[in-house]
Amino acid sequence: MKAMKLAAYDGKAPFEAFDKPDADPGPNEVAIMVEASSVNPVDLKIRQGATPVGPDAPHVLGCDVAGEIVAVGEAVKGFRPGDAVYGCAGGVKGRDGAYSERMVCDARLIAHKPESLSCREAAALPLVAITAWEALVDRAKVQPGERVLVHGGAGGVGHIGVQLARAMGAIVHTTISSKEKAAIAYDLGAERAIDYKEKSVDDYIAEETGGEGYDVVFDTIGGPHLEKSLQGVKVNGRVVTTVGGGASPELAPMHMKNARLDVVLMLIPMLQDQGLDHHGDILMRLARMIESGFIRPLIDDRRFALEEIGAAHDHLKSGDAIGKIVIDIGQNADARPFPPLR
Amino acid sequence: MKAMKLAAYDGKAPFEAFDKPDADPGPNEVAIMVEASSVNPVDLKIRQGATPVGPDAPHVLGCDVAGEIVAVGEAVKGFRPGDAVYGCAGGVKGRDGAYSERMVCDARLIAHKPESLSCREAAALPLVAITAWEALVDRAKVQPGERVLVHGGAGGVGHIGVQLARAMGAIVHTTISSKEKAAIAYDLGAERAIDYKEKSVDDYIAEETGGEGYDVVFDTIGGPHLEKSLQGVKVNGRVVTTVGGGASPELAPMHMKNARLDVVLMLIPMLQDQGLDHHGDILMRLARMIESGFIRPLIDDRRFALEEIGAAHDHLKSGDAIGKIVIDIGQNADARPFPPLR
Repeated sequence: MKAMKLAAYDGKAPFEAFDKPDADPGPNEVAIMVEASSVNPVDLKIRQGATPVGPDAPHVLGCDVAGEIVAVGEAVKGFRPGDAVYGCAGGVKGRDGAYSERMVCDARLIAHKPESLSCREAAALPLVAITAWEALVDRAKVQPGERVLVHGGAGGVGHIGVQLARAMGAIVHTTISSKEKAAIAYDLGAERAIDYKEKSVDDYIAEETGGEGYDVVFDTIGGPHLEKSLQGVKVNGRVVTTVGGGASPELAPMHMKNARLDVVLMLIPMLQDQGLDHHGDILMRLARMIESGFIRPLIDDRRFALEEIGAAHDHLKSGDAIGKIVIDIGQNADARPFPPLR
Repeated sequence: MKAMKLAAYDGKAPFEAFDKPDADPGPNEVAIMVEASSVNPVDLKIRQGATPVGPDAPHVLGCDVAGEIVAVGEAVKGFRPGDAVYGCAGGVKGRDGAYSERMVCDARLIAHKPESLSCREAAALPLVAITAWEALVDRAKVQPGERVLVHGGAGGVGHIGVQLARAMGAIVHTTISSKEKAAIAYDLGAERAIDYKEKSVDDYIAEETGGEGYDVVFDTIGGPHLEKSLQGVKVNGRVVTTVGGGASPELAPMHMKNARLDVVLMLIPMLQDQGLDHHGDILMRLARMIESGFIRPLIDDRRFALEEIGAAHDHLKSGDAIGKIVIDIGQNADARPFPPLR
């Protein structure tokens, strides 16, 4: 069936449509008719040859998937053909990508799609939500009543970070770069949205925390925000970043604070073929939280068909997108088979 | 200043007003002008001689306090005269009680009162909120997306348990005994309120969790609810009860489920003089959560003055109260010095 491939990871080769032969799922795999996928910054890095984690030829990218199971391997439990599922299930070395009408993936990486979300909405979530979960739940272990600062609260990982930390009972502040993004962050449950271009770390630490600093700082942006994170965390606090690559922060402020730094790369289980079922578990619990109204995806207004992956990448690069950029692939990407819960 | 004392722990002796001499705070203590206190089931047990944890003569009961600091010991940090505070700070062996116009207590047991609550509202919270916190945060360590069942979700500890578990990102079900209490539980954030007189554990486990059981069951009622908790928890799940005394549950269902049972008695730090600062920390974080709108107290409509403690006890015994029974003691029990936050 139709899929989009890259001839090379040189940042220039265009996405090209081709006819990908249908593969049978292995014993622990499922085959999915893909309704929607999404674009993530890692796709741009792979395409530019800036990271070695890309999939092997025929180079089908696309990590996030939402769609319907059409075949299951003999050892798969808990899924049947016809089930609507979602996951961050491929598009890296050794794994089939989701920019394709049909995809085969490990069943441990997926979960039943939240019924109240369309495939389009569900496909926006897996990579960013698992990243935020690993950062805030698994690593920082955010406690109720703690103060959490999320850098980039209107971004892909950040918009889930804000909602998840809030859902864990934290008082969530976030840094943003415009009034429009501040409004989004407040709408997602942030208690304060701080324009980092207008306020220094020292100023907002003084104003917002009485000089104490945040219990947890979650850096979803990288660059200067990592140093700012170390500045903004309190004594014995925890910093988690998703953007450790290429950074070499000054550790003295951490030392004086007895602080911890965690770097999260959610692709590790897919790349190393271990801990896959934890991703399925996260998505199962995330689905419950979505049905209970704790978390919702923020999706950019522009729409892209499978053949328009290149334009979707350009849109992500432009920095103009607000929320996740989704790719419509199947005919039912917008369908909601069940009404949203109360 | 005026205080109420019991002559004996025989269930018959009435509360009597007396003039309690003002004590100076010790190095780690503060003196509080009490604006409000509340009634807890442990007060009834102490009065009836059913537990050895009662305060020494002159037998001034009352655990919860909200009021204004009027003097601080020389080693106290973080509090000054004039500060509005709240805590579960006495009324047990070795500690001054709160059924009194003035109270001396350990500064580590208190925290600054949430500004948006009156002393009347704040005094309803400490004992029940610390109990729920120790059960759900410290022991069960509830994770986002887990299913939590709270027995007695419209009760004193239960109504905080429902809100706190919800604030931790859990999907919260609760058992109640009337339609009125079901409405309260839904209002507090419960996803399902189950009338335990109408439905068996097996039935609601099947209907609400697909037969799997709850990740966490929090028993705030005791008696048959403890056995039901062990029945209702899933494999590898956690049960926490506040009512371990006198119970001897059948452990076979726990064994087959690899389950854990925690018993929480929040009075331990006060009784054993250890871990006191953890209670102050909990109340500090609770205050932030209150200001952020995560948690609010449920307070019974009937009002009682300091001289009416006996009637307040009778009201608790009657089982007719909805929410916490508060005692108005100072002139400013209803005052809110600051407007509620957005």
